[in-house]
Amino acid sequence: MLNIYVIFVSPKYQGNIGSLARVMKNFDIENLILVNPQVPIDDEAYRYAMHGEDVLRNAKIVNSLEEATGGMNLLIGTSGISTSSEKHFLRIPKTPEEIAELVSRYSGNVAIVFGREDIGLLNEELEKMDLFLHIGASERYPVMNITHAAAIIFYEIFKRRGVREGPRLAERRDLDRLYDTFVSIVESTRYPEHKKKNSYRMLKRIIGRAGITTWEYHILMGMLREILDQCRKMPPP
Amino acid sequence: MLNIYVIFVSPKYQGNIGSLARVMKNFDIENLILVNPQVPIDDEAYRYAMHGEDVLRNAKIVNSLEEATGGMNLLIGTSGISTSSEKHFLRIPKTPEEIAELVSRYSGNVAIVFGREDIGLLNEELEKMDLFLHIGASERYPVMNITHAAAIIFYEIFKRRGVREGPRLAERRDLDRLYDTFVSIVESTRYPEHKKKNSYRMLKRIIGRAGITTWEYHILMGMLREILDQCRKMPPP
Repeated sequence: MLNIYVIFVSPKYQGNIGSLARVMKNFDIENLILVNPQVPIDDEAYRYAMHGEDVLRNAKIVNSLEEATGGMNLLIGTSGISTSSEKHFLRIPKTPEEIAELVSRYSGNVAIVFGREDIGLLNEELEKMDLFLHIGASERYPVMNITHAAAIIFYEIFKRRGVREGPRLAERRDLDRLYDTFVSIVESTRYPEHKKKNSYRMLKRIIGRAGITTWEYHILMGMLREILDQCRKMPPP
Repeated sequence: MLNIYVIFVSPKYQGNIGSLARVMKNFDIENLILVNPQVPIDDEAYRYAMHGEDVLRNAKIVNSLEEATGGMNLLIGTSGISTSSEKHFLRIPKTPEEIAELVSRYSGNVAIVFGREDIGLLNEELEKMDLFLHIGASERYPVMNITHAAAIIFYEIFKRRGVREGPRLAERRDLDRLYDTFVSIVESTRYPEHKKKNSYRMLKRIIGRAGITTWEYHILMGMLREILDQCRKMPPP
């Protein structure tokens, strides 16, 4: 079973909140989580939500991104800015098609995270994401209204609905354990200190992007544990 | 050269007009034609347009759909309602992907026509369209905000940008001549009177959907003229 959650971080405009609820309903997505909204949610939001009013009424309001993302298997951050620079590999993005393809093959809780209308997601929020989604658009003006971006993403996911359900994705805590184990392995080596921060980030990204299933997790962990044991047998670096 | 025009018929809300201009700019589409807008276009529309303000400023305002569609090679009507009923074959729709695929293969002036926010395009307006576009969405609530629909359509077209340019599409008056010639042929036969209206409509649709090029038009017309000559040699029905 695939469950899609939409998380909107610190929204500022009722129009966007309501409009997002409407377009979610248009594509049969029901779970909205609002993190720390900057406006009350009243008549104006409901006017924009139209027949998506139940999505809006059932929206969960939380105080932090951590609260919103607990229990999710995969966190997909959206960004209006794309880069292929190696310096910013944190944000090397996937297209809506690639994300939809990946999502359609799995079961589990997938969150699509939208940032603030003006400045998007903060760096520390981006670091929590497993992967990034960017919509290729005009070079002159790539920054879309968040509900337009949402419409495109939901549409791509909806198109692949009914495609066979895949194996269950590994839980977030499994992915964290994979990551931690790998880091422990590297820490037991002579890997240069100054390269670690960026390398670990990249590792986290790759684990997120890979869409690892529960079965694969167990196999991988088996191997990593063996590797860690072996590394620790060696003299400390 | 492919030129895409966006025609918005009798818009009622400045927010939608501005928002449409913004998402056009996001996907490098510049030509907006507003038919008989029901509101002034002032600060509110520009606030929604953001950096699409030049699209809005350069928008052509006209009084009728005829005025808007002169010089277009292909008219694509959008509709929130889909049907596969034979009775309503006027509206048998194509998906955004199919439309984008068709459009990417041709040169010429292509108009994407959006109807009123509440009731869409009227039947007499729909009859003028060469083909219909419908976005598959939730059965429970398929009616999208027009700018959300626009975002999805423009995105699909943008994705295929840079794909090879195809041969030039036949002009509208060529398509009309094809249609008229075919009708003349049928009129010269014993085809039952009561079937004609619907059959002719269907014919018009097919000619529109086919994406006929100038070269194909000349070949087809050559054949149709021969057929018409032949039919008229026979005793009148």
